Amino acid sequence: MKNLIFLLILSLFSAVWAEAKPAEKYGDLVVRIAEIEVYPKWLDAYLAAARTVGAESVAKEEGVICIFPMQMKEKPNIIRIIEIYRSEEAYKAHLQTPHFRTYKEGTPHMIKSLKLVPMSPLDAENMGLIFKKLR
Amino acid sequence: MKNLIFLLILSLFSAVWAEAKPAEKYGDLVVRIAEIEVYPKWLDAYLAAARTVGAESVAKEEGVICIFPMQMKEKPNIIRIIEIYRSEEAYKAHLQTPHFRTYKEGTPHMIKSLKLVPMSPLDAENMGLIFKKLR
Repeated sequence: MKNLIFLLILSLFSAVWAEAKPAEKYGDLVVRIAEIEVYPKWLDAYLAAARTVGAESVAKEEGVICIFPMQMKEKPNIIRIIEIYRSEEAYKAHLQTPHFRTYKEGTPHMIKSLKLVPMSPLDAENMGLIFKKLR
Repeated sequence: MKNLIFLLILSLFSAVWAEAKPAEKYGDLVVRIAEIEVYPKWLDAYLAAARTVGAESVAKEEGVICIFPMQMKEKPNIIRIIEIYRSEEAYKAHLQTPHFRTYKEGTPHMIKSLKLVPMSPLDAENMGLIFKKLR
């Protein structure tokens, strides 16, 4: 039932989506991959901190669209996080929140390396096609 | 429009969450990041091929949950694709489809390097929290 409601709501918006100009669709989004290596002895503590900040950010901030963290199977201390913010302003606001500051100030000693890689979704046409299944 | 983007992107990930039964929510999923470097002179041709196979896979294969391709902003010929398949069997079936074989056989000369990195979503509890906003 939840799936059905979800698909119905989505289908209501999909017509609008199809009409949208590419520039409006993705121009403001901030999409990136965080590439993080954690010291193995701090892995559990880091994962707990990452869980907390991810959950609180998505729950409390309208501008945080997605935080999707993954561990590399072969090296569980290698983390990749797909982050999508609604805009540059939303991202800057995120940096000032208490939950992000707690994370940022509490984890430096756990992190061996951190790289933030700005990304662009391939293009509007492709995004539309990707979500075809959900309409 | 931004709400629409929000719904569409989150729906991509929520489908994973909502459609799976609790006991098998994450155990069977195949999640990975494809790390691809394309020869710049072949970039447009590669992107066209990637769009086609991504769109057809998601549209035609129930087991292909998500193909989310991105270009690195600073080096647009560096591609990252988040791929989520419903199971190992779904992934193996994907490899046998005409659209994937067309892509696989038509693009080797365009690709300078390709690495497929198996990943695990951080954990079920965290996935649930991430999608709290949607429930």
